[in-house]
Amino acid sequence: MDNWRHKHIIDLADFSLSDYESVLELANRFKSLTKTGTKRLPSLQGKLITTLFFESSTRTKNSFELAAKRLSADVQSFSASTSSLSKGETPLDTAMSYTAMGTNILIVRHSSSNVPLQIANMIDNSGKETSVLNGGDGLHSHPSQALLDLFTLAKHFNQDSPTPETIKNKTILIVGDILHSRVARSNLWSLTGCGADVILCGPKSLLPDNFINFVSSPPPGTQKDLVSSRGKISIIRNLSEGISSADAIMTLRLQRERMEDNLITNIENYRNNFAITEEVIKRCKKNIPILHPGPVNRGIELSSTILDDYQYCLVNEQVCNSIPVRMSLLYLLANLK
Amino acid sequence: MDNWRHKHIIDLADFSLSDYESVLELANRFKSLTKTGTKRLPSLQGKLITTLFFESSTRTKNSFELAAKRLSADVQSFSASTSSLSKGETPLDTAMSYTAMGTNILIVRHSSSNVPLQIANMIDNSGKETSVLNGGDGLHSHPSQALLDLFTLAKHFNQDSPTPETIKNKTILIVGDILHSRVARSNLWSLTGCGADVILCGPKSLLPDNFINFVSSPPPGTQKDLVSSRGKISIIRNLSEGISSADAIMTLRLQRERMEDNLITNIENYRNNFAITEEVIKRCKKNIPILHPGPVNRGIELSSTILDDYQYCLVNEQVCNSIPVRMSLLYLLANLK
Amino acid sequence: MDNWRHKHIIDLADFSLSDYESVLELANRFKSLTKTGTKRLPSLQGKLITTLFFESSTRTKNSFELAAKRLSADVQSFSASTSSLSKGETPLDTAMSYTAMGTNILIVRHSSSNVPLQIANMIDNSGKETSVLNGGDGLHSHPSQALLDLFTLAKHFNQDSPTPETIKNKTILIVGDILHSRVARSNLWSLTGCGADVILCGPKSLLPDNFINFVSSPPPGTQKDLVSSRGKISIIRNLSEGISSADAIMTLRLQRERMEDNLITNIENYRNNFAITEEVIKRCKKNIPILHPGPVNRGIELSSTILDDYQYCLVNEQVCNSIPVRMSLLYLLANLK
Repeated sequence: MDNWRHKHIIDLADFSLSDYESVLELANRFKSLTKTGTKRLPSLQGKLITTLFFESSTRTKNSFELAAKRLSADVQSFSASTSSLSKGETPLDTAMSYTAMGTNILIVRHSSSNVPLQIANMIDNSGKETSVLNGGDGLHSHPSQALLDLFTLAKHFNQDSPTPETIKNKTILIVGDILHSRVARSNLWSLTGCGADVILCGPKSLLPDNFINFVSSPPPGTQKDLVSSRGKISIIRNLSEGISSADAIMTLRLQRERMEDNLITNIENYRNNFAITEEVIKRCKKNIPILHPGPVNRGIELSSTILDDYQYCLVNEQVCNSIPVRMSLLYLLANLK
Repeated sequence: MDNWRHKHIIDLADFSLSDYESVLELANRFKSLTKTGTKRLPSLQGKLITTLFFESSTRTKNSFELAAKRLSADVQSFSASTSSLSKGETPLDTAMSYTAMGTNILIVRHSSSNVPLQIANMIDNSGKETSVLNGGDGLHSHPSQALLDLFTLAKHFNQDSPTPETIKNKTILIVGDILHSRVARSNLWSLTGCGADVILCGPKSLLPDNFINFVSSPPPGTQKDLVSSRGKISIIRNLSEGISSADAIMTLRLQRERMEDNLITNIENYRNNFAITEEVIKRCKKNIPILHPGPVNRGIELSSTILDDYQYCLVNEQVCNSIPVRMSLLYLLANLK
Repeated sequence: MDNWRHKHIIDLADFSLSDYESVLELANRFKSLTKTGTKRLPSLQGKLITTLFFESSTRTKNSFELAAKRLSADVQSFSASTSSLSKGETPLDTAMSYTAMGTNILIVRHSSSNVPLQIANMIDNSGKETSVLNGGDGLHSHPSQALLDLFTLAKHFNQDSPTPETIKNKTILIVGDILHSRVARSNLWSLTGCGADVILCGPKSLLPDNFINFVSSPPPGTQKDLVSSRGKISIIRNLSEGISSADAIMTLRLQRERMEDNLITNIENYRNNFAITEEVIKRCKKNIPILHPGPVNRGIELSSTILDDYQYCLVNEQVCNSIPVRMSLLYLLANLK
């Protein structure tokens, strides 16, 4: 992992192919170790990892904390609901306070985009060595989710050697509410970064046309794109236009709140057009893998039959892979010199 | 413990005498080890135990988690209040997700009866090896509470050798709101299963007549009763009818909500008839032990004098015993091959 | 630490100079060990520490729990919000229940004064060996905060040898809402106990005149004062009266609720008179240290410039020192024979 050079992981816009290789290789090693019964590695002994979740998500928090414990780190958590935020403290002051407590890696989740970046900048300015790992921020980015999706796909395509190479030239169909999904945005960086072509599918209200240019305009402050040749992004409005060419389907959680914003006129309509069902699968390539970041709205994004009975529905595999992938990220951050 | 054959612990209806023997023997061993200063055993190293509490109870959760830590397991917890259930996920999907994360034992608490059983069935159908331990479900069952009550009683009757045999032919008086108590139901299985006679005492609204047949009609899906000769159940309506023959009294928490349902007309009335006070104790056998699963409504189920000053009020002993008894259950589940 | 004789730490009114010496010496040792990379000591292996927070404070809880983990103790926590208090249980019964579970040290925080003392008395009456450490109670006392403030000050005055001696004859200015601050009250005991003079500064509504007699009337039940010669307390109403003679400034959090009580007429006014800003610092002794227990209301007690850029603003240093100081307290309580 000599190539690793990130103090923080905020966004995948600045990941190089070698970064993806490092994460996937390490994740595969951790996954193998777990299978052979080695549950706890001493790698992060004496390190303190703090989950700082201003937006709640028990499962993601548990996944990070379990990954940290598997590496023998000390773990503490702060959740906004039980916090002193009501006392008027800013997220940045909270973060500095946990930095002062000796935290080595802060895992930050916040409903506003860029809070993790602001915290990282403040830490850097103060001369501290604490790393920030973005646990999901607003509509911006969710790097660990995209990396575990990537690992799950790579494992599916090549069980023994799940490298970024296995994703190259594949066509990945992402279906649903792209506009409001930080997961989709991070997937766009990672998938095209590994050379896959991405087809986005959704109604105009949830998938504006300009997403086609997403990776060609990196976020402000980012160096020039470190990936020399990315896969292509295209947009379709009906599943039938893309279903036969896809090598994998990634579905996204539909936020019910979008209904109230009139972005979709009715759930039934959405389901008819975009739900992945047995019928849809029949028109796909054989054994096509289906992913979803969870939690699933049963019968909306995925039919119950797909969820419970379709062999290549990888939803639980994604949850399982979340541990070794997050172990990798913590390991890489903690061992950067 | 070669006789142990349960993958899950959902209900005590399917416990045999040998199951009770295994749990009590092991609990006694764990309790002795703790007393001699051995606080942490390596038995469950590398195992992951998840508390999945859809109904909150900090103390029960703490007790299970401490038991797990004492056996060196990794522990993570999910509580509904900080969860994604509001996002529309079903308890079964949540459970499958934690199963995917590598959980060895799921401890499930839910306000609806049978959720733990449904989760266990779903896990079995999926071919996973995860065990389910019922942490209390609806009005159905609370096996770990009944087993720690049993252990506490057995310890009281025979400090050195707290076997099920010590309970045999004893008369146990259970007082209060039987109808709404999963603890009482589980106690009925375990006490009669060890050969004790049980006298139930309460007003008709909280103790319907048909409870007399409770253990003769095992729940649907249960094999034939593995206990060949159970103790008898009888019902009384006034404490005075049973007080002189009882060898132990188990009281139950009165849910104040029952008042609103008009099941009891007034608290004062209930207290006069069913509270265990100094006066009541005087009419009992000498040194009669008093149990309560907690938390106690002071002055309603038990008078403050009994709680604070009566030597054989075993409420805190029950809490203390919750650790070794739950250690036993986790140990038995984790070591089943 | 042979002089240590406290089973419980409830209040600093009964601390002797030798108690302060024990805590500071031990804290300095723990801090040095941490810096040299020794993150986890085996001292409290097998001990169970329970945080019992009836009043929520994630950060203080995290700080105590991290201190406990650094000493290899088992840790469990109970918070009122997720508790059975709604079920009518008293804090004393909750505490006895955790005592029964085998807790060695209960860390109790409650919005009512004297709950920790009542719990300690109940434990003593029951013959149990569990220690109580007051984590903050009502307006009464917050000993661990005052001790970490003391350590931070002592470290500032003498990096290598932060003894109570370094505080002697210093003048410490405490600014703000003294009336409603348990931190200020505990600071008064510790600072004068080490021989510092304290100047209190605030408007009459937040700082009544009788505070001048605070340490000369020890709380009911306390033995005679073990400190033979305390520093003096004086009161001023304007910062300018005390600013030039102060060797350190301790600021306090302004509870916004006080506005509603009409105790301060407006925030702007308060800020103009009592906020510590660059302008104020210019009139102080060179390199004067500024403390605040956190969380800070930016721009009210301290200006953002002071918080972010003033080298001797020790707010984060206090957070950092909270770990070794709390480790000391846990260590002393657990090792008392």
